Amino acid sequence: MDTAGKVIKCKAAVIWEKSAPFSIEEVEVAPPKANEVRIKIVATGICRSDDHAIEGKLSTVKFPVILGHEGVGIVESTGESVKHIKPGDRVIPLFVPQCGQCICCKDPRSNMCIAGKMKKAVGLMSDGTSRFTCKGKQIYHFMNTSTFTEYTVAEEMSVAKIDSGASLDNTCLIGCGFSTGYGSALNSAKVHPGSTCAIFGLGGIGLAVIMGCKIAGAARIIGVDINPDKFNIAKELGATECINPKDYDKPVPQVILEQTGGGVDYAFECVGHIETMLAALNSSHFAYGTTVIVGVSAPDSTISFDPMILLTGRTIKGSVFGGWKSKNSVPQLVSDSLAKKFDLEKLVTHRLPLNKINEGFDLLRSGKSIRTILLV
Amino acid sequence: MDTAGKVIKCKAAVIWEKSAPFSIEEVEVAPPKANEVRIKIVATGICRSDDHAIEGKLSTVKFPVILGHEGVGIVESTGESVKHIKPGDRVIPLFVPQCGQCICCKDPRSNMCIAGKMKKAVGLMSDGTSRFTCKGKQIYHFMNTSTFTEYTVAEEMSVAKIDSGASLDNTCLIGCGFSTGYGSALNSAKVHPGSTCAIFGLGGIGLAVIMGCKIAGAARIIGVDINPDKFNIAKELGATECINPKDYDKPVPQVILEQTGGGVDYAFECVGHIETMLAALNSSHFAYGTTVIVGVSAPDSTISFDPMILLTGRTIKGSVFGGWKSKNSVPQLVSDSLAKKFDLEKLVTHRLPLNKINEGFDLLRSGKSIRTILLV
Repeated sequence: MDTAGKVIKCKAAVIWEKSAPFSIEEVEVAPPKANEVRIKIVATGICRSDDHAIEGKLSTVKFPVILGHEGVGIVESTGESVKHIKPGDRVIPLFVPQCGQCICCKDPRSNMCIAGKMKKAVGLMSDGTSRFTCKGKQIYHFMNTSTFTEYTVAEEMSVAKIDSGASLDNTCLIGCGFSTGYGSALNSAKVHPGSTCAIFGLGGIGLAVIMGCKIAGAARIIGVDINPDKFNIAKELGATECINPKDYDKPVPQVILEQTGGGVDYAFECVGHIETMLAALNSSHFAYGTTVIVGVSAPDSTISFDPMILLTGRTIKGSVFGGWKSKNSVPQLVSDSLAKKFDLEKLVTHRLPLNKINEGFDLLRSGKSIRTILLV
Repeated sequence: MDTAGKVIKCKAAVIWEKSAPFSIEEVEVAPPKANEVRIKIVATGICRSDDHAIEGKLSTVKFPVILGHEGVGIVESTGESVKHIKPGDRVIPLFVPQCGQCICCKDPRSNMCIAGKMKKAVGLMSDGTSRFTCKGKQIYHFMNTSTFTEYTVAEEMSVAKIDSGASLDNTCLIGCGFSTGYGSALNSAKVHPGSTCAIFGLGGIGLAVIMGCKIAGAARIIGVDINPDKFNIAKELGATECINPKDYDKPVPQVILEQTGGGVDYAFECVGHIETMLAALNSSHFAYGTTVIVGVSAPDSTISFDPMILLTGRTIKGSVFGGWKSKNSVPQLVSDSLAKKFDLEKLVTHRLPLNKINEGFDLLRSGKSIRTILLV
């Protein structure tokens, strides 16, 4: 049946209000307007940022909303003026778009497209409306993606066309978790061969950081987590050693300083807690250590430290989506995955149908999953 | 008279206890031991770090002490095993030494010689003794330099031999203030051509940052100070505009964000106050701004901010002595000065004899001087 130009009725997971569970609903998805594409989502990962959104920790989220930002799918139809994407293309929606025109898109140092930043703040498409309705109510978009649904609509600048041979399953991880961690090592820290790295938090992001450190040629990759169940997979992906802070009666930075002769070259915080951010900073070498903040902290959190610990030569920085310019980089990352440069499947622990999404979030919250993929 | 091998009696400015004024005393300066050189100081600048030391804000300082760390002079004699320096050489004592052997000296990213760090902490020479006595009491060394004296002793690793044609007057500024600011722009921030910079605090260090930004090709150089008397010299040295926060009824970061279309590429804090550090950070561009902490804050100070302001792509870092590897770089900086690549004299506002050192510090504290040089 040709659905182009028509409203599609389909299944979606809606969060009606802050802290509510997902409700599987029949929603209406309007046809794409100018510069927009409608995508049939095939697989979508469950990421901690979605959970932050549910809990109201992301200030830009408005309810009711269709969450999800790590998806892969097939283009169903395109609106006017869409230039480089056509029905049938395999695509990954991009929560950090790349308009190509703004000051950040034009600057090689940044991937923080200004157009995307503004749209994210309103939860609506560029014309100020939503493409989703349910039971007569407008449903908000989320992060330019909204992938917890059979069909979604996104702007062309928020969609990357990927290889036609790409898997329509774990490739979704390139839409967020994998790329965020992997790029934090390669783009943000610029890990150099022979260096020593410490990764705080061995969830999906932290494990992807390990994959990035390994491919960059780090000599020592130290995984840090209070859950030793993560150590086997961390070592399989490239960690040369793992530390459980609970095994020591002294602070973990002291342990790392002693074991590395003064601190690591690169420390990565992949939890989003102030305490682990400070531990990462204090584990970095006083004269040349770089700390990369990858984890998203709760709103209005505050990190406090003596600025003199920077004066000796330390650096702290952060990045979103691993610093990748999304539309340029995602197709290449998919090709690298097809070329087996890295194995996304190592990060996948569970698969569930979309209607079991609440179970998927329970797995996330209990720490039992690395990545759960919802098959839509 | 050949003084080599003998104790020299000479004039020095001694601080007997915390917060005391300088006392001009006759001191005894012992001959240099192995790997040490004795230097006749000819000129020495007054720097804010000396004042911090007097006030007890530098935890490593022990009293009584001979302060001063920005000097130039002539080698009087050398101890055993000194290899590359001989009597008559013009030299600059180095408060950050370069032993050449430690992990930092061997790493291109750092100038924080470990040997120097350890010696600084004790205020004594490597054999655990001082070369200074006065009225029968041992007087402590300061920062491996102690230049407020007619003669001092320093280790070869803490002394740079400079061009025999170098001035024995304002060249002393290469020993601290000039190099610290200039290198913060060139080495720590790596200011790029066409970029926009903001410099918070237009004292000697901040003005030297401006000189570095200009030579690096920055297109806009914004000087920020609450004392508009500094604006003329800032503009003469390269500032394209100056901002007095007192002229606005909104925070200075907001002013700078508005005037620069979103923030500067590079922000430099040259005051040592937490408030200006935060202003610098918040004036940097959210997606690619780098903030360099150059100012030394009071002990146990704390900077606090939401770590999410880093996540979008900001960087904060710090450096000591502008990131220059001291023994390698100081001779080159002196040559650059002789070649008129920059004009140190622009930073000098006052000259006084050593016995008027207390007047010199009054000028510093009142904000009336940029650099006062003591002629010894």
